[in-house]
Amino acid sequence: MKYPNSQKTYEKIGNHDTSRRGMSLEYDINLSSQYYLEREMANIHKKPTPITIVNVEYPSRNKAKITEAYFKVPSTTDYNGIYKGRYVDFEAKECRSKTSFPFSSIHPHQIKHLRSVCKHGAIAFIIIRMVHYDVDYLIDFNEFDEFYKTTKRRSLPYEWIKEKGHPIKVKLMIPCDYLKTIDEVYF
Amino acid sequence: MKYPNSQKTYEKIGNHDTSRRGMSLEYDINLSSQYYLEREMANIHKKPTPITIVNVEYPSRNKAKITEAYFKVPSTTDYNGIYKGRYVDFEAKECRSKTSFPFSSIHPHQIKHLRSVCKHGAIAFIIIRMVHYDVDYLIDFNEFDEFYKTTKRRSLPYEWIKEKGHPIKVKLMIPCDYLKTIDEVYF
Repeated sequence: MKYPNSQKTYEKIGNHDTSRRGMSLEYDINLSSQYYLEREMANIHKKPTPITIVNVEYPSRNKAKITEAYFKVPSTTDYNGIYKGRYVDFEAKECRSKTSFPFSSIHPHQIKHLRSVCKHGAIAFIIIRMVHYDVDYLIDFNEFDEFYKTTKRRSLPYEWIKEKGHPIKVKLMIPCDYLKTIDEVYF
Repeated sequence: MKYPNSQKTYEKIGNHDTSRRGMSLEYDINLSSQYYLEREMANIHKKPTPITIVNVEYPSRNKAKITEAYFKVPSTTDYNGIYKGRYVDFEAKECRSKTSFPFSSIHPHQIKHLRSVCKHGAIAFIIIRMVHYDVDYLIDFNEFDEFYKTTKRRSLPYEWIKEKGHPIKVKLMIPCDYLKTIDEVYF
């Protein structure tokens, strides 16, 4: 009898005003950031994927075609920007497990980066989408790091995420309304 | 008798403790940012070049090879990060003209972006390297924008740059010591 049960949990935790259409977390965050940008609420962008370009061809005079390139390991997080005068920095990850978020999902470079920006006064967090429950959580990086540095586990238990994380609501045109959650947690 | 004359100007304006080896402005800024990062002085990075990936091949199981991709027009600036709790955002351009910096060097999207981050409280500027004089200037974006919005010219005159810009010094291991100039201008 799993299905009706998780449906109930979904509705209870999710606080959805509207349903997401099963798009990726990245897509939903970009759409939300775009909404904020157009209304001058914040200026937050996803960074381009870092790649190493090996070869470029010029089939016509003004069109460069990259014919050989490789993905690089990112040295920072994917998202940053400014909100209410504060520097904001975060990483976003989908989690398909029902029970925990594996630390291996976040690269050590990114942990180091988030620690560094925290020291300089950033608002820093991780957005974790628990895919099975269809809920996004904002996890303050300092909270995360406290657990990460002291635990012997290799993952963040779902129970911990529910307790320490801040659920992010879904609104019409804002599929991942993280700015509202930032307001609640940091302002 | 151009040569001895410009040499003199170079030494007078540049305040060089050491000479740069003719590397690109991007290279010099990245080296300086790396220096700041390692000493926990600031956390500022160049964003990866935005590209549109069309095709990816998998010649071996864990190595993805991008075989077709194109450069995208950037919608933000190249550099951002955090310094002393403040969000910092800038674009950097080399200028080969001796007399002026053409506005066409900066994309309208980037001007719009810098206006937006200013509204949210950012430290925002443009670094212009006057290649002929071998001097880098920090131009506060609000100063730039005031001129840009009111002039009928299509470029920033070198005289204006010298008057309103803040020369960035060269230090040992910091080929473009922009953090020191930020201190002078914004703190």
